[in-house]
Order: sequence, then structure tokens, then C-alpha cells
Amino acid sequence: MFADKLSTRTHFVGTSEIREVLKVTEKPEVISFAGGLPAPELFPVEDIKVACDAILTESGVEALQYSTTEGYTPLRQAIVTRLKKMGIDTTVDHLLMISGSQQGLDLTGKLLLNEQDTVICESPTYLAAINAFKVYNASFVEVETDEDGMNMEKLEKALQTNPQAKFIYTIPDFQNPTGRTLSLSRRKKMVALANQYNVLIVEDNPYGAIRFAGEPLPPIKHFDTEERVIYLSTFSKIFSPGLRLGWICAHEDFIKQYVAFKQAADLHTDSFAQRITAKYIELFDLDAHIEKIKAVYHHRRQTMIDCIDRFFPKQVTHSSPEGGLFIWVELPESVNSREVFEVCIQNDVAFVPGQAFFPNLKKENTFRLNYSNMPDRKIIEGMRRLGQVLHSFLNSNVANF
Amino acid sequence: MFADKLSTRTHFVGTSEIREVLKVTEKPEVISFAGGLPAPELFPVEDIKVACDAILTESGVEALQYSTTEGYTPLRQAIVTRLKKMGIDTTVDHLLMISGSQQGLDLTGKLLLNEQDTVICESPTYLAAINAFKVYNASFVEVETDEDGMNMEKLEKALQTNPQAKFIYTIPDFQNPTGRTLSLSRRKKMVALANQYNVLIVEDNPYGAIRFAGEPLPPIKHFDTEERVIYLSTFSKIFSPGLRLGWICAHEDFIKQYVAFKQAADLHTDSFAQRITAKYIELFDLDAHIEKIKAVYHHRRQTMIDCIDRFFPKQVTHSSPEGGLFIWVELPESVNSREVFEVCIQNDVAFVPGQAFFPNLKKENTFRLNYSNMPDRKIIEGMRRLGQVLHSFLNSNVANF
Repeated sequence: MFADKLSTRTHFVGTSEIREVLKVTEKPEVISFAGGLPAPELFPVEDIKVACDAILTESGVEALQYSTTEGYTPLRQAIVTRLKKMGIDTTVDHLLMISGSQQGLDLTGKLLLNEQDTVICESPTYLAAINAFKVYNASFVEVETDEDGMNMEKLEKALQTNPQAKFIYTIPDFQNPTGRTLSLSRRKKMVALANQYNVLIVEDNPYGAIRFAGEPLPPIKHFDTEERVIYLSTFSKIFSPGLRLGWICAHEDFIKQYVAFKQAADLHTDSFAQRITAKYIELFDLDAHIEKIKAVYHHRRQTMIDCIDRFFPKQVTHSSPEGGLFIWVELPESVNSREVFEVCIQNDVAFVPGQAFFPNLKKENTFRLNYSNMPDRKIIEGMRRLGQVLHSFLNSNVANF
Repeated sequence: MFADKLSTRTHFVGTSEIREVLKVTEKPEVISFAGGLPAPELFPVEDIKVACDAILTESGVEALQYSTTEGYTPLRQAIVTRLKKMGIDTTVDHLLMISGSQQGLDLTGKLLLNEQDTVICESPTYLAAINAFKVYNASFVEVETDEDGMNMEKLEKALQTNPQAKFIYTIPDFQNPTGRTLSLSRRKKMVALANQYNVLIVEDNPYGAIRFAGEPLPPIKHFDTEERVIYLSTFSKIFSPGLRLGWICAHEDFIKQYVAFKQAADLHTDSFAQRITAKYIELFDLDAHIEKIKAVYHHRRQTMIDCIDRFFPKQVTHSSPEGGLFIWVELPESVNSREVFEVCIQNDVAFVPGQAFFPNLKKENTFRLNYSNMPDRKIIEGMRRLGQVLHSFLNSNVANF
């Protein structure tokens, strides 16, 4: 209907395959490791009730009125304080509040990408970032990753063969989908390469605060000597995703341009949600809340890895994240994870087949598991079912040879 | 800085002139008729407190978690009920919740506009719609308007000379900036012309519910025989703009595409804000609340028009809105409203010079007045100052000849 009226963008952005996957997993009997949802029982509902009440009593009118595109200054000030502790020394003038960090990806596409411009990214990478940049008809150059994140030699080759690349898109901490973290030396090297080859870095960091093992690492932006790093983050994983609150931290000239595009896109981010979050940070202890999240996720990650050891065939390998929400699984190359998925769904267990996380390559033998959203009991039962299906696939594959 | 990294879109969307205007008007001593803000003292703060408390008690976890891109179904159901009363017979499958109706403009640009595609619009039109479509490098064809809205003969000529035009963008009710309303016969005619010339209509209706005089008219979408009308509206003017809640009502095929773009843009609209609004509609009487808004705006509109009669030179003409937030003023052609603005600011009174509302034509002798955001006392004092400045301009202009 009216197909002649649609823009060419509609060719790049179909209804995503992942949405169809998630729909299948919505039946209550399915144990789903597919989504990337925080543990809902940890949301500080009672404290948020106190914060809401305080905001509506003290500044209800301002919370409900139009406000500035840049965002609520006390909240931006609180973010500045948090960023300083992480090693990013910045000011409110370098911060724009956005409707979740996903909007940061869309606005970044708008700000930087012309048709057919190249984005250099990890292989695999966050599928909704692929979609956000595809809206602007971007091309992707994937760089191999290992347990320490993006391979710097391969990155340098990619920069040499793609001198017009606009930016490197990276999720350095507990990456989606792999759970892997970029090592300290590679962080420094990435900045050095960006300077040398005159390319920007878009550092997407939704999970960095959820480190439950190993040593904390400073963000890439900590090493940024030429203000080339555009840093995106969010309250979704440490507070509430439903409120849709993220931020961009970047050079002031970029922020001014982002503000113009943000204003054309949705005027400003929900004022009430911004004030609730600022009030919560003022009245309660966000860091203590994050400690609770970490403890629960650490435990669930361990339960899931124990289950992999116990239930999965030995040929299956996996990442060992020190934080975040995801484990990445690789099957022998002969196995297609979409076929595994079809059988799993019949056994009421789900994950996300890995293909969607590769903009070009489509490695068929991978999948992503989420452990944050599920109690132990269900993790164990779901992984048992998944293990059975994997055994059946690996045996039948063995039998074929 | 990094100018070589920016997309060509940045050429079309600078920081808008209007933002600079609004910054000047932010000083507390300025009486500003510049913004388009609802009367803040009417926000139902205490009732919203009750709704928040109920949501956090009954479904706090769901309100704070990720949710579906389409939006909260009970809220969409409530909108369906409201639309039915206005003459739009639809279902939740034809509705997408968005982050304010401004996002509807951005998503519409994304969905429909290729580079240099033509948008047919009223002359003048909403300046943030111009900016939203300019992001996608649209061209604009302006159609003359009078007290009954867009001129249909001129519209037909525009359709004939621009057969590739993608859509007609119109604000039929109490238009921004003119306050004018498209007549009943022209609504029917616009649909007939859209059918005949195979073009879509984007009906932007943020103000329609705020009718305080004259007879209600059905939306253009009421007359839509071929599902060509994409209808945008919002809770900003009837409930709270700070919560950033709007909706798109359109053919299901369009909604599916909008959902894909919305998901890439910001995943979904704030779940908590959606549930607060649905709960408010369930517990309280939104229509009774709108009646209060209408009574106040009707009174303020009358105060402002009385002041025009009393303080303005007789050569100055103005629109006579039966609803909404704005009055449009035309000066003799020799007077430039930007120069008037400069003098007004020195006298601590402000408006928006009309130029920004014309994508191409830039009529210099017009400006927009807002009456919703200001108590009587301030309206009278501000209009007195503005009248003085206009008299000085018209006398000096007379003296020049």
C-alpha cells in the first residue's frame, strides 16, 4: 500500500528478524534467554515512589512543562560527578540528555553519516546499532574480536583500507552480544589509531557500571587527547530502562549540533523522568543500588556458566564476561544456530541466533544468552533443555560424517 | 572542529533562529508572547500524584521495565475511544505511541522523504515541522492561506505543478502560527484532491481539542476514503508536554514501518509516562480538565484581542482564532517584524517574528503571539508596550514617505 510513497530508507530497515524471534519467546511457558532486560525485581520501586512524590510536591509544574533540549541541569551535574569518578573529566556543557542511549545512535547517524559512509565496528556488534546506522544507509566494516575485544592490527588494516571511514563504533565494556571487554592496552591503542587516521570513536557504554569481577578499566574517552570520542551511556541498566534516559558526552561543538537534531527529533527528553532520576540520586544511594544489581548478576552469570559446563557438549565454546548481561556461545561450524533455535522453541527455551549481530558476515554457528532477567531455577531448567537440543544437533552432525 | 566528519544534513539544520529568540526572552523581566507553552498553573499536579502512586503500587515493575515499541495498549485503547468521539473510527493496531508529536514529524520525514522530495504545506507553517523535514533535505511548496485555512485552488495548482510531491502537511485546527482553522468544505476538498493527485496527507492536530468558540469540525482523517491520511496528535496541550507523549494514527502498513523506524530511533516511548497518563484517564475526567483549559484560554484570547483593538495601530491586522494558543499579526508591508522585535526586547516584551514560519517566502511583516502562557495582568501590560513600539514604527515609516 502506497509503496511508491516510501523513502529508500525503508529498504534498509525492515521489521527486524529479532522482533519476530522475541515474539515467539513471549509465551509464558518459554524460558527465554533472548532479551536483554534487567532483573525487574531489583527496580527500586518504593524509592522511586518517594522521589516522584517529592518532585510533584516541590516542582510539579516544572516537571510537567516543556523544558530545554539540553536536559535538566541538576541531572547533568550528577552525571558529570559520576563520569569524573570513572575518569572522564567533563562539564554540563558537554552533555546532552537523550531518550535512552539508542537515541544517541540515531542522532549520531544523523549527525555524521552520509549515504554509503563507512562505520567500523566490532564483529559481532549490537544489532540495534546496525539498524540505527542502516537508516542512514551506512556501510559496515567488521573488525575481528577476541577475548580482549577488537583486534588492533585488524583495526589498523581496516582504517588503512577505508580512509574515508567516519567513525569506529565500539562497546568496550561487556559488549553486546559477546560480553567481552576491550583490554587497557587496546583502549590506548584505539585512541592512538583514531588520532593517526583522523577518525572519530563512538564509545557506547551501557554496561560498564555493572562490573562484578576483575579490575575496572577507564573508558576509552579517558584516553581521548583530541576530543574525538563521542561517549554514550544510559540509566537503563543501573536504574530503569522504562524511563528512557541516556546521555551523550562529547566536544561542545558536537553537542551544539546534536542539540539541533534532538530538537527536530522530539524537542527534549521527558522532564518528569529526568527530575525523578535526579531526585533519586539526591535522596538515595545509586551506587549501593548498583552493588545489589552486580551481586545478583554475578550469581546468575555463574549459574549459567556452571550449566554450560554441565549440560552443553564439550565442542561448544563461550565467552566469560566479568560484567554486563550476556554470554556469547560458538558452536562447531557445521551447526546453524537458527535451526537449533527452531528446535529449542518447540522445547520452550529461547536465545538470539547470532546472525543478526553481524552486519555483513552472518556467522551461522553463534548465539547470545542473557542471564540478568531470570532466577536460578529457570536458568538451570532452561539450560538443561538447551543442552539436550545441542547434544541432539552435535550427535546428528557427527552421524552425518 | 571535525567539520569534515559531519553529514550534509548539518547544512540544512543549524541551531534555529527561534532558539536564539527564545533565549533572549528568558530573562524574568521580559513579558514573553514568544513560546507556545500551555498554562502551567492548570497542570493537574495533585491528580498526577495520585496516578503515579497507583501505577507504582499496582505495576511499578512493568512501568520501569523495557516495553513494546507500539506503546502501552490500555493507553492506545483510551486514545481509540477519544478518536471515535471526534469522528475517527480506528483500532489500536493503527496507533503508535511516540515521544511527543514532534517525533511523528521526524519519523514521517524518515519514512517518506528522499533527498529533494517535495512537501506541500501551508504558508506560513509550524517552524519545527520545517526543521524536521529539512533534516531529510525536503523542498517545500507553500500554499496560500486565508481565514479558512489553505486555499484549495492554489493547492490544486501546487499538486499539478508538483506531481511528485510526497504529502500535504497541514495543521487544520487553530494552526501554528496563524490560529486559523480549515473550513469543513475545504477538508472534504483536500481529501478529494489527495485522492485525485495520489498524494498523502499528514494531518498534525495538537490543538484541535482546545476549541473554545464556534462549531467543532471533524478531522480531515474523518473524510479519508483511501487511508491516505497520517494523523498526528499529542497529550502536550491537553495534559502535560513535559511527559512527551504523542501518537500516530495511520494505515496498518504505515504503522508497521513507523514501528521499525521508532525502534531504531529510541526503542519505545517512556513506559512510566504512558502508564501515568492511562491511569489519569481511568481515575479522573480528562474532558472536564480540558474544559478548564478552554475557559482560561478563551478568556486570555479575548484579553489579547481587546488589547490589540485598544493598543495597536489600526493598520495592523490579526487572525481571530476559535481555539488553540496563537494569534497571527500582519503589519504593513513596509515594516520588518525583526526590527520591531529588537526594539521590543529593549522594552522587555517579546514575540516570534514571522519569517521563521515560511520555508521559502520569508514575509518580513508578520509575527506570532501566544496567549496561553500568561495571566491577564501581564497580557495587558505586554500588549501596551508592544502597541507603543508598533506606533513608533508606523509613525516613523509614515514619516519616511
